Amino acid sequence: MKKADIKKINLKNKFAKVSKYWSPKIIAELNDYQFKLAKFKNHFIRHHHPETDEAFIVIEGEIYIEFDERTEMIKAGEMIIVPKGVAHKPYSKKEAKVLMIEPRGTVNTGDVVNQLTLSNDNWI
Amino acid sequence: MKKADIKKINLKNKFAKVSKYWSPKIIAELNDYQFKLAKFKNHFIRHHHPETDEAFIVIEGEIYIEFDERTEMIKAGEMIIVPKGVAHKPYSKKEAKVLMIEPRGTVNTGDVVNQLTLSNDNWI
Repeated sequence: MKKADIKKINLKNKFAKVSKYWSPKIIAELNDYQFKLAKFKNHFIRHHHPETDEAFIVIEGEIYIEFDERTEMIKAGEMIIVPKGVAHKPYSKKEAKVLMIEPRGTVNTGDVVNQLTLSNDNWI
Repeated sequence: MKKADIKKINLKNKFAKVSKYWSPKIIAELNDYQFKLAKFKNHFIRHHHPETDEAFIVIEGEIYIEFDERTEMIKAGEMIIVPKGVAHKPYSKKEAKVLMIEPRGTVNTGDVVNQLTLSNDNWI
């Protein structure tokens, strides 16, 4: 990151640029890690990331992450780390706003490739 | 992280365990990166991190980060990435609550070692 690029990021303003559900948009990079904003609603697919942990910080609303043995509900002001290799299925009953942190190049659908799989360079 | 450790983290509950200003406490790890909670009030020292960028997400209140050329005010709902090598002096007029993300082993005072320098294994 160039020195000229140092500026604060307002999450609410950035979320206004996210229109599609389950479509994380990059807002910042920390070394080789990326901060992404996503809106969750209804169901995503069960998947895992073979190479990395994944962080979810809920900014607004509440999300559910279904693991093999149980489901966690994470609401605004809460976060969770999903360890690498652990299958998880995110879902949300109503629209929720989530800040995700993961290494550059992490694919949104993990080990699964289908119509929900996105390219990795969606900056807002 | 062991599979048994997968659980959500409530930031407000964790901040209640932070009593000292300028004393980041670890709440989670994402690969070799750490999430730390800190309360800011008054002035910290000017320093830089020669090896890493540093992320500040303001959860409550507002903070200032003074750079060589200017100062940024970052308030609740906003974040900033301070690039590696860039000198910065954080301060806050009133108590503010901040989530910081940086690689494991990052020293709070960066290139400076003084009475504010902390050890790196303060989990809450």
